[in-house]
Amino acid sequence: MRLMSFLSLLLSLALPAKAEVEVHATGDLGVVIERTTGSVLIVDQSDMDVLARVEGFGDLSHASAVFSPDARFAYIFGRDGGLTKLDLVTQSIAGRVMQAGNSIGGAISDDGRLVAVSNYEPGGVRVFDAQTLDLVADFPTQSKTIGLVDAPGGRFVFSMWDTGETWIVDMSDATPDVTKVSGMGANPYDALITGDGRRYIVGLFGEDGMSTLDLWSDAPVAQRILPGYGRGEEPLPVYKMPHLEGWALAGDRFALPAVGRHELLWLDAQKLTELGRTKTHGQPVFAVARPDGRHVWVNYAHPHNDTVQVIEAASGEVLHTLKPGPAVLHMEFTARGHQVWVSVRDANRIDIYDTQTFEKIGEVPAETPSGIFFTARAHRIGL
Amino acid sequence: MRLMSFLSLLLSLALPAKAEVEVHATGDLGVVIERTTGSVLIVDQSDMDVLARVEGFGDLSHASAVFSPDARFAYIFGRDGGLTKLDLVTQSIAGRVMQAGNSIGGAISDDGRLVAVSNYEPGGVRVFDAQTLDLVADFPTQSKTIGLVDAPGGRFVFSMWDTGETWIVDMSDATPDVTKVSGMGANPYDALITGDGRRYIVGLFGEDGMSTLDLWSDAPVAQRILPGYGRGEEPLPVYKMPHLEGWALAGDRFALPAVGRHELLWLDAQKLTELGRTKTHGQPVFAVARPDGRHVWVNYAHPHNDTVQVIEAASGEVLHTLKPGPAVLHMEFTARGHQVWVSVRDANRIDIYDTQTFEKIGEVPAETPSGIFFTARAHRIGL
Repeated sequence: MRLMSFLSLLLSLALPAKAEVEVHATGDLGVVIERTTGSVLIVDQSDMDVLARVEGFGDLSHASAVFSPDARFAYIFGRDGGLTKLDLVTQSIAGRVMQAGNSIGGAISDDGRLVAVSNYEPGGVRVFDAQTLDLVADFPTQSKTIGLVDAPGGRFVFSMWDTGETWIVDMSDATPDVTKVSGMGANPYDALITGDGRRYIVGLFGEDGMSTLDLWSDAPVAQRILPGYGRGEEPLPVYKMPHLEGWALAGDRFALPAVGRHELLWLDAQKLTELGRTKTHGQPVFAVARPDGRHVWVNYAHPHNDTVQVIEAASGEVLHTLKPGPAVLHMEFTARGHQVWVSVRDANRIDIYDTQTFEKIGEVPAETPSGIFFTARAHRIGL
Repeated sequence: MRLMSFLSLLLSLALPAKAEVEVHATGDLGVVIERTTGSVLIVDQSDMDVLARVEGFGDLSHASAVFSPDARFAYIFGRDGGLTKLDLVTQSIAGRVMQAGNSIGGAISDDGRLVAVSNYEPGGVRVFDAQTLDLVADFPTQSKTIGLVDAPGGRFVFSMWDTGETWIVDMSDATPDVTKVSGMGANPYDALITGDGRRYIVGLFGEDGMSTLDLWSDAPVAQRILPGYGRGEEPLPVYKMPHLEGWALAGDRFALPAVGRHELLWLDAQKLTELGRTKTHGQPVFAVARPDGRHVWVNYAHPHNDTVQVIEAASGEVLHTLKPGPAVLHMEFTARGHQVWVSVRDANRIDIYDTQTFEKIGEVPAETPSGIFFTARAHRIGL
């Protein structure tokens, strides 16, 4: 045997065998908020598996996530004002900023360059460079700031609990351009943007009804809708008011929680007028539409939070009732809709269901899981 | 050293190291078809750059691509019947099958497990395991087979030029279930599925008008629409008939090429009835909607194929005319809509435009580029 071959043979015997490498790509990954432990799971949707647990996210008792356009980074917004950049490739924290006090909600710009975070204290929105987390703009509002979303054209939109204003901030040029719209109503408590980025819909706590803005207008003006949608016959405290993330667009209609009633409302998606109601098992919290818009999956507030119902959008009929377990907090569909992942907080588990047959097809262990966010959100306006 | 420790050490040296997990970001990648050279570029949309050129795809004179759910693999369908699995992470071909003769069109199932390819010769659809490219099912039709799409629930839908039938194949169980619908019309030449996976719309060459199926129905029946949409006053040859990939959904309406006229048609997306027309610079080939649905970008057939127009969906008005260069073949928006990439075949270049300002913001060199496909398509029904 020649010398080089002999040396190669010796080396191959002496060195440890080469490690097997499992390659994952970010297109089908997701993050799961572990609310009690301040940690985040990185999951692989296709493999129905956990890739890693990452610690150090602070107070995740109310948390959300957005993704960079390449689906490499998740930006996790924590209740304590923490903004944490999670690298799904290295499975570690790439940056972290304590950007304010009591804080709910964040968004990423359409080009992925800016991350905005709203806060209750001191009140306002701060905008950060998505790469470095350097502060690039600060919008103090002297008000609890709610309903922060991204809109096409490099914009962020948010509203003020105290003043009833909505601000539209255009970050696409060197100098931010701020349009202030007043008269949205008494005590906006939450808002959403429609999937086409056109309409900004605001929930009001201080009066019955909701307000909407047409973001395609050069000078948007508040329009009132749903005059009967209010705090209910027995006025609810604000923390029991339905969150607008609980709205779902299913085909030509929205599904949304009724206020203080065991009902799901249906709205014509163009006119925003009521089409009808479905009686439900409990007070709906989230309605989530299967991506084809044919069905809506609904979870409920305590004490009915062990139950999920599947409702057909066209007819409003309940097709199926599931009992995943104690404290169902969140549901997330795969992007093409073939599976739905359901967090069952008090069973420390995520259940995975087939969305055609409603059969449970898998599960993933998680510590008090709440929100589940798949990377496909990187590619959708407002998410 | 104690015996057990020594044995453990020996074992750890002898056994392969535990599998390492490597994650790669694939969310903002894309593939560009280089039609003359049978090669494919892998591009990075955020960086506006080419990552690699990969050779060996055969005849790409008419080619398309779909993506695996993790956005790791692109499946490229070539004119010569080639089905090639491209690994975007290793930037190399991971598998290749010459699955038939003359062939146009392919699709991937909603769960990413199966890839289907249709062909003109011998006529039919073949279904392959997406991982191994093993043949798992064969549907001979004795007809040129066209209009292959995926539909929710693990289904594939395709139509027959010779017999005017549409087949709906459900692959979700061990045995495929085939529903055959007759009477779609004379000589279906192309088809599309709406983004909600509900309606399958078929273009007819042998008669004026189109046909549609409601895929939510248990027993779908062909419905005629657009009775005036035919081969035109001077009947066109089939290769000049507008391809249904040229349709765009913009908000509440479809934009589609008129037949043999310099016009864009607008259809009510619910009723599929005509709303109006916009006079255009040339015979439209592709209308592509900006993801928020506010604008549609349109390119034209030779000799007007150096021009692109931006048309406002709500008003039907032409907002802007661009002259990217000779032979604009394809346009692809980033997922949230802030950029559009435009292939300029005879300038060997892809132009990149800002979709708010219409300014050119970058370019990428490419050999006779035609189709551009971003990985965000992995997450959309029918793409």
